[in-house]
Parts: sequence; C-alpha cells; structure tokens
Amino acid sequence: MADISTTLPLSRSSVISAHELIKPHVHRTPVLTNTTLSTLASTPRTADDLKGTRFEGRTPAKPKIRLWFKCENLQRIGAFKVRGAFHALGRLMLEEGWVEGGGKERGVVTHSSGNHAQALALAARESSVKAHIIMPTISMPQKIAATKGYGANVYFSGSTSVEREALANKVISETGARLIPPYDHPDIMLGQGTMGLELQEQVAELQTKDPYSSGTKGLQGIITPCGGGGMLSGVALSAEGTGIKVFGAEPSYQGADDGKRGYESGERVTSVSTLTVADGLRTPVGEWPWKVIYERRLVSGMYSVTEEEITRAMRLVLERMKVVVEPSACVGLAVALFDEDFRAMVEREGGEEGWDLGIVFSGGNVGVDAIGRLFSES
Amino acid sequence: MADISTTLPLSRSSVISAHELIKPHVHRTPVLTNTTLSTLASTPRTADDLKGTRFEGRTPAKPKIRLWFKCENLQRIGAFKVRGAFHALGRLMLEEGWVEGGGKERGVVTHSSGNHAQALALAARESSVKAHIIMPTISMPQKIAATKGYGANVYFSGSTSVEREALANKVISETGARLIPPYDHPDIMLGQGTMGLELQEQVAELQTKDPYSSGTKGLQGIITPCGGGGMLSGVALSAEGTGIKVFGAEPSYQGADDGKRGYESGERVTSVSTLTVADGLRTPVGEWPWKVIYERRLVSGMYSVTEEEITRAMRLVLERMKVVVEPSACVGLAVALFDEDFRAMVEREGGEEGWDLGIVFSGGNVGVDAIGRLFSES
Repeated sequence: MADISTTLPLSRSSVISAHELIKPHVHRTPVLTNTTLSTLASTPRTADDLKGTRFEGRTPAKPKIRLWFKCENLQRIGAFKVRGAFHALGRLMLEEGWVEGGGKERGVVTHSSGNHAQALALAARESSVKAHIIMPTISMPQKIAATKGYGANVYFSGSTSVEREALANKVISETGARLIPPYDHPDIMLGQGTMGLELQEQVAELQTKDPYSSGTKGLQGIITPCGGGGMLSGVALSAEGTGIKVFGAEPSYQGADDGKRGYESGERVTSVSTLTVADGLRTPVGEWPWKVIYERRLVSGMYSVTEEEITRAMRLVLERMKVVVEPSACVGLAVALFDEDFRAMVEREGGEEGWDLGIVFSGGNVGVDAIGRLFSES
Repeated sequence: MADISTTLPLSRSSVISAHELIKPHVHRTPVLTNTTLSTLASTPRTADDLKGTRFEGRTPAKPKIRLWFKCENLQRIGAFKVRGAFHALGRLMLEEGWVEGGGKERGVVTHSSGNHAQALALAARESSVKAHIIMPTISMPQKIAATKGYGANVYFSGSTSVEREALANKVISETGARLIPPYDHPDIMLGQGTMGLELQEQVAELQTKDPYSSGTKGLQGIITPCGGGGMLSGVALSAEGTGIKVFGAEPSYQGADDGKRGYESGERVTSVSTLTVADGLRTPVGEWPWKVIYERRLVSGMYSVTEEEITRAMRLVLERMKVVVEPSACVGLAVALFDEDFRAMVEREGGEEGWDLGIVFSGGNVGVDAIGRLFSES
C-alpha cells in the first residue's frame, strides 16, 4: 500500500486522477436500462405486498424511478474490485523509491477469500509485481484456482482474522511485501469511486438517446452495496458537489446492517458476524470509508433489506435482464423496489418528475450450483 | 402471413430490406468477446478429455479461434424471435388491401409454447393488430402470463401438432386472422437473418479496437443453433457472397440432430421426438429453411453436441461471461469448444492465423428454478 502520507486527498478530483491511472487496465463497464424493472420500481406496492413485512400497514409509496444499472459484474474478474486493486498498486509504484528499491520483486500481500484476492493477483501480474495472497483453507476451490491462475503465491490460513493477520505479518517479514487491504485505505476508495464517474458520464450520454423519453438530465441518486465501504465511500466522493445523492444498501440479516446502525447511532460498528446470503457484505465498514460515509456526510442515507428481498431482486435481474449478478450485487435494487422508506423519500423528493437512479451491480461471481441452491427452495 | 407470392426473394439484399423494416422495433444487441472462452477454444483438448466421447482416440485438433458472441439473449422478449415476428407482421401490413380491409382487427394467429408466442404478441401490440396465440395447456405459467401481458388472446390446446393445428384453423375461420408460423416462411427467415448483418458490421467495428490484437479482418465463420431452421437459413442468407461460412448446431439427444442427418443423407427429416434440454430445438427443419440450408448449400456444415456438452457450455457462459442464456443458445459454443470434427476443420482452414468465429446466443429465457435443476446433479 502506498504510505498514507503520500495518498491523494479524498475528493472528487482525486477520483478523476485515479480514473486516469487505471483506465487502461479496467473495462468501462456498460450501463444497462430495463423497462420492466423501471416500471416495477415505479408501480406502488399493494397493501398485500407489505403484509408481514416491516412496512405492514403503511400506505405504499408512489415514486417514479428510472433505473440505470452500472454493470460491474461485467468488469474484469467479474467484480469492481479490480478498480481499487489497480489504483492501489499503481499508486504504490509511483511511491518514491519503491520500484527502484526492488519493490516489484518483494511484491504485495493481502488476505481475502473473494474478489479482492483475484483482483490484486491480476493487477500484480499485469505490472510484473509478485503477489502473495492469503486465503482461508475453506475458500471455494474455483476461487483458489482463479487466484493461482493469475500467478499469485497462495497461502492458506484459518478463517479468523487473527489467524490470517498473523500469516500476513509472517509473509511480510519474510518477503518485504507491502500490504494491500481490501477496502480500508484511501487508494482503494478512490479506485472504486471511478465507477461513479463513469456512471455519471454514461447516463448523460445515454439520456441523449433517452430510452425512457423522460427529458430529464443526469442522475438524482446512486445506490451502492456497502460491505467494508470502499465502494460506497468512493462513489460518494465521485458525486461530491454534483448534487447527486448517494445511498448505501446492506443486508439486515444477523446484524449485517452495521453501516446503517452506525450511521443512525453516530458510532461506527466495528465487528459483525453474519451469514447473510450477500457474502461480499459480511464485513463491517472500515475506518477510512467511515470518514467519508458518516463524518463528512457524503452518504445521504443507509438502507437495509431482508434475505428474501435480496433473492427476489436477484431473480428479477437474472430472469428479466439476463445478466448474472451475485447476491451482494442485488441489495441496491432490492432497496429501490422493496424499501418503503427509500421509496417514500424518492416520492417526496422526486415528485411528478421522479428520479433517475443509478444502481451498482457490484459483481457477478456466483456459480450455477450456488444459483441452484439459492432458488431451489423458493 | 404475407402471401408467398408477395415475399421478397431469398437473398442477402432482401435481408438488408428486412433490416430497414424492423430496425426501429428491435435492439441492435451487443456483440461480446471473452478472453477466457477464446483461450479455451484455442487450447487443444487432451486425450483424457476425449475419453468416453465420440472422439476417443483421436488426436486433438489445434485450432485458433477468436469468439464473437451475438447476444440475442439481450434482445426484446429475451430472444431473437422478435426479428422474424416484426418482419412478418410488417410485410403483412404492406400487403395490398390487408390493413384497409380490416386486417388489423381480424388479426394474426400462431401456435407456440415459447418465444415465438411472446414475440408475435409484442409485435402485434406495437402495431395495434389483434393477436391470437394458441399455447399448449402444459406451457409454463410465466410464458402464458408474459404472452397475455402483451395483450394477446391466449387459447389453450393439447400439445400434439394435430390438436393445435385444429384449434388454429378454428380461430382462423372464426376471426379471419392470418397465420404467422414460427419459422417456415421466407418473411420469418429474412427477419431472423438481420442478426447476421448486425453481427458482421459489429465485428468489423470492434476489430478496429481489436481486443485480441489479431490484426484480422471480419469473420470467417458463424455458428447458429438450428431448430426449425429459420434463424440458420436467415443468417446463411445474410452471409451469402461474403465468404463467411455458416454452420448449424443441434443437440444430438434422441434424434434432435434431424438437420444434420438430413444434410448428410440429402433428405429432410420431417419429424422429431426428443426431450433434449435445448427445448427450443426440438422441431424438425422446415421446408423453406431447408431450401437455403441444404438445396442451395448456403450452410457449410451441420454439427451436433451432447446434452452434457450443452450444459457445460451453458455453465461457462453463466459463470465466465455473466450473461444468462437458455440451453438452446449454447449449442454453437459447445460445437466450437467440444466438437473435434468442427475444430479440426477450423485448424485446417484457418491455419496459423485461425478464425474469427461468430456464435449466436439465441435467447436467455430460462428461469432460475430451471438453472437450479439443470446444475443440481452436476
């Protein structure tokens, strides 16, 4: 990781600089629209729909919502994580003396069972930097194979944070590798924020051939999933000063809504233990993201959805949009479709004209077997 | 259906005319590339891979293949069938006296349990033409709901062709509606062929920013699935005189490879009874498509793949490309990856430079429940 003293300030213009740095390495992923889903989002739910939910008895909201989907599931390695990884590595390579001092040979290290592992392995390979990746022994074989496939040295640890941090420290002391954490660092946040810039540009471009003929201009809101908060905080920075409101979405299952609870209580929740189906969102919000999300109030609200709402949204995306998304990627759409607090807010703020709302599909790394298990009981 | 005497000649320029007619109504679906899949297609299979297959003992072929995927799964209604439906209806409306004589009120009729039903219902609605759709009682509830959702009158029949044709005739005699068959008509073939024109254009455009840096130009081959043959024959017409070879792909299960058997014996197979997982390809090739596919030799070869090869290809598309395809859409990719006859031919003809090969993903209408069933045993 680049030393904190050398990182760029957390601002929109730093996100623009990050974009310049990583553009050659990442896809400008497509932004899709879908008439069926926008119509669904703009149709009030019925009293029956709300029965048995936390909104039972409420008068259903009547928002008008035009949805714009930023498809990071079609990103390299199947998830947005490459943005942060390429940026963090790029910044590290710009650090005075790092490359000259043999940094590429000493390499970089991280611990991750998921998308960040593959992202860093890929970024390292493309810059001829050694990558040391610590994965829990229980990681999915495909993920281990993919990470090895990018040429990384894979080490296995137990699944607790104590075990993997001990192993990371051991690797660092033996190799001199630099740690690249998955979300809790300004370089990662600025890298992830680049998707927000693209989304803003792409919606403006697409609105000139407006599929919804709304005559509106730009986005009024963006929802991103929130796990460690790297993406949410980065996207919030990308929207600073634009008038676009940014929101975070989380699962509510077993306390996975740590970001929302922290946001409401004013105190960051630092530990979470949940087995939500949205497995990319099982981590608490990190310190650096928290500064942007809460302390600087660059995020306008946090919302949480149930496991059932997540899988319903996922089914809609697979069956109607025909793109593959992992459960974690579906929390934002679930908020737009099913969260009456959010919907009432859009009705209030958007009025007759409604909102153009960006939704980030953060990743698509889910196997067909997992899809089968998810929907076999439904 | 427009009267045969008024249809355009079966030629590339008629496909171009068809494209002009339907362009405002259909998506110019994206053409995607995928490095992982192209690498896989360009990697010789091992002797072990071939063990237990029809190619056991063969020396594995070493073709070089760059894949270009035409994503008709992202087409309106989730399948290419809208192309033929909009074209057939558009031509009918151009038929002298049809509209003036009250044709729109009398409407159109078809029998289909699948994508053609929805396609015709949609096309009819957008032209304010009445649609009468005969569906087998056992059709999937979602498909019935979708067809009704487009405003069509849905009639239920038994699932044999005798039963549904009897009901179609009854509807025709009662309403004066015109029959729009799913594939066996020049208007349908020319409509489906428009995807071939787009694919050719799009690949040329994309090659200027060549993701494979091959320096090659255009396509050397296109593979499409073959059920009734409307799409295959239309795409073959779209490639006539271009030097691009067009191939058909079928399932081999329970004789679903009627097109291949007919092509090899010189005699069209007129009846098929198969429960292949590729449920869109259970029909025999129609008379009109046969003229183009076989009699005029505009198709250069027919290939068939096993059920296991189809589901393996489908898994790769879902997991690696992150787009949803139905089993029928995967037969072309399965040929490119697993059929040693096809691969040996590409090795021979493509040599060192290899081939740029277009693959049509014909549709994406598969529910998450069906995905679960398909992959639960694997």
